[in-house]
Order: sequence, then C-alpha cells, then structure tokens
Amino acid sequence: MAGNPADKPNAVVLLSGGLDSATALALAREHGFNCHCLSLDYGQRHRVELEAAQRVAASLGASAHKTIRLDLTAFGASALTDPAIAVPIAGSSAGIPITYVPARNTIMLSLALAWAEVLNANDIYIGVNAVDYSGYPDCRPEYIRAFENMANLATRAAVEGRRMHILTPLIDLSKAEIIRLGKRLGVDYALTISCYQADDAGRACGICDSCRLRHAGFVDAGVCDPTSYRQSVGR
Amino acid sequence: MAGNPADKPNAVVLLSGGLDSATALALAREHGFNCHCLSLDYGQRHRVELEAAQRVAASLGASAHKTIRLDLTAFGASALTDPAIAVPIAGSSAGIPITYVPARNTIMLSLALAWAEVLNANDIYIGVNAVDYSGYPDCRPEYIRAFENMANLATRAAVEGRRMHILTPLIDLSKAEIIRLGKRLGVDYALTISCYQADDAGRACGICDSCRLRHAGFVDAGVCDPTSYRQSVGR
Repeated sequence: MAGNPADKPNAVVLLSGGLDSATALALAREHGFNCHCLSLDYGQRHRVELEAAQRVAASLGASAHKTIRLDLTAFGASALTDPAIAVPIAGSSAGIPITYVPARNTIMLSLALAWAEVLNANDIYIGVNAVDYSGYPDCRPEYIRAFENMANLATRAAVEGRRMHILTPLIDLSKAEIIRLGKRLGVDYALTISCYQADDAGRACGICDSCRLRHAGFVDAGVCDPTSYRQSVGR
Repeated sequence: MAGNPADKPNAVVLLSGGLDSATALALAREHGFNCHCLSLDYGQRHRVELEAAQRVAASLGASAHKTIRLDLTAFGASALTDPAIAVPIAGSSAGIPITYVPARNTIMLSLALAWAEVLNANDIYIGVNAVDYSGYPDCRPEYIRAFENMANLATRAAVEGRRMHILTPLIDLSKAEIIRLGKRLGVDYALTISCYQADDAGRACGICDSCRLRHAGFVDAGVCDPTSYRQSVGR
C-alpha cells in the first residue's frame, strides 16, 4: 500500500473485486484522492472476489483497504448468499435478478459513510452501473441522489456544513466504455473477478450472466479479455 | 417467542436493549404488527445491552429476534466502540456527543431495510428521540424522512409500488412521556439497560449522562425507577 500524503484529500472507494469497482478506484486515484478501499464480506458464495479486491487495492496504490464482515446470510433470499437458491446460468430474465442482495448497496454505502466520517472524507466512490444491471433498484441514478441527500443529513459532516458526495462515474457507461477507461488508467483486469461461481483458483465459469456480460464488454471494447474461464465463453 | 400469525403484517423493530426501543417495540405490537426485532452487535462496550434486547424481545412477544454482528470498531472514533476514548461522566457538553457512533442509525436502518425486504414488510420502527439527544444528527426528523425517501428507491418494494415507512413514534416525546407510554403498554423497564458502562450483572453506573437522563425521566413521569444503579443517581 502507498503512504497517506497529507496534501491529498481522502476518499472511500467501495471495492468488490469486480471489473467496475476496480475502474472506479483507478478513477478516484486519477482524481487526486488518497483512496481508502472498503470491501464487504457478507457471506457471498464467490469468496475469491474478496481476494481479488485485496489484489486490486494493492495494485492501484490504495492508502488502505478494509474488509468488513457482515453476515447477510442471516436474512437469506438471494442467490449470492442463500445456498438454497441456484445462480442462474442461462440468459437474463426480466425484472430484478435473483442475484440481487436485499439493500446491499444501501448497506455498503452506509458503511462507507461511517468510515468517511472518521476519515473526514467528503467523497465516496461506488462503481454502480445502470446500463448493464438496470434490474437492480439500487443502481439507479435517482437512488444514488436520494442516498446522497440522506447522507447529507446523517453525519457530523452535515452538521459542520461539509457536503458529502456519492460519486458514480461509471453509472452511464457501457461495459466496453468502462473497460476502455480502465485500460487507459492502468487497471490490470486480470486481477478482477466478475463471476459469481469462480473456483478457488479464481477461474470464472464462463457460462453465467456475469461472465457473458464481461466477455462481451472486452470484445466490444476491442481489448483482449485476460480472464481465465473454465469453459469458453460466448456472448 | 410468539408465533407468526399470517393475518398480521410484519414489521422490523430496531431493538437496542434500551428504554426507548423497548417502548417502540411495545407500540409496534399495539399497532398490530408481527414484530421482527433486530439488534446490532457492533462491538459496543456495553455488551449487557444485547442481552437486555433479547429479554425485551421475549417479554413483548416478538415473532423473531436477530442479532447481527458488524465490527464497527474497525472504524473507531466513538467512545462507545473505541477503548482509547473515555465515556464522559460529567454533564452534557454542547455539540455532537463523543458517544455518537458514525452513521450508526444509517447502518442499522439499512440492515432493517434488508430484512424488511426479505419479510415483505413495509414498516420499520426505530426508537429515536430528537428531544433528549438533539446532538445526534441521525436522530432528527429531516434525516428520518430522507432515509425513508431513499428506502423507497432502494428496494424491490419500491419497484413493486409498495411504500416503505420508517416509523419514529417517540421522536417528539420527552423521556417522561416515553416512560408513561411504555408503562401503559406493559413494558417492564427493569429488563432494559440505558447505561453505557453497566457491569456484567447489568447494574448501571448511576453517573453517566444516560443514567441521569433515564432516572430524571422516571422522576418526571412519576414512575418508580426499577433500575439497579451501582451509585445513587442524581438528576
């Protein structure tokens, strides 16, 4: 990890280990922040994601990286946390995906807000994207604005007259645009994992929705896909 | 714990083990809800609070009680979680109290929102109070309204057109009014703990701000204070 130069402002960056949040971190660094990365160990099946987050934080010179354990499996009801629900492997269906974790972004942003308050940081980055994942209610721009508005009433910063910003620089970008942006900023996408069913060696399944979206993004961006897939991936 | 009759709607009730949240739970029951109580084990010093929450949930016929572990000590910066910061024992000082835990209510409400979504519950009770604790930014009515607004964009319920309600029935009540209300509803306040420095037997210190506010509430309400104090408590 890099140092924590006093002349740069702090930002909290939510880091999942996936492609999008890695790109958001690279952008936060480009914007001149000391980046404090936060990952959530919420009992997700794809544990290798958390190891990926650690590698990504180190490779992009984060000032700090914390992984907070929070057992969301206690609530159940998502394919990502409930072993009784299968992760879908076929094409996307309409509506909210079964991989949606109830209130996940709200919980992650709330934790980021707590850390931001301790760090006197006014800026929180989250790599949500409304294009590829429009089925998730908590990836929509109107949701993010409402969270920011709430955050500006919730904290010491609000009382002191500082403005909190929830920054979503990827929200309107396609997967291909995100990948081109990240490549320009030096993101090593081989370190990231998007697959919900990656094996312990970090190899992606090649057949789930996430793998297909990710691979199509690389193809559309004209960038070589560095992902290790167990099965050859289609579009 | 009582059963879970299908003819009653579910509500999530945030339960700390203190006097206020016990009263909020009694009110939620009075309002006809199946009450699902949620406590947060955030590494607080006053561990007996969590045992109190369990006793309160059982005594008021909650349908369920979950305690979620989340290590907020990782962020530090509150007297309630950071051993390096002393809990104040003298009178209240101006501004935000040192016992403020960054973004605690936001985190607790976010977890309640997740559980509410799984339960198909539209109602979340939180026993915040803007009268006695006006120094906490996340106890103010405008904060609660902003959280509710955000919650109504965050979840599956929002997409399905259901309205989420964040209910704060105690927000404008004095401590004495809360105690009179709770007595009418059958709350056994001997089960609750307000002290930040209670001993392992659950005996309150008698000298901290919380003890003084609590005792004054009983005196003002004309209700016998059932609290076990280690030192006789003044106003």
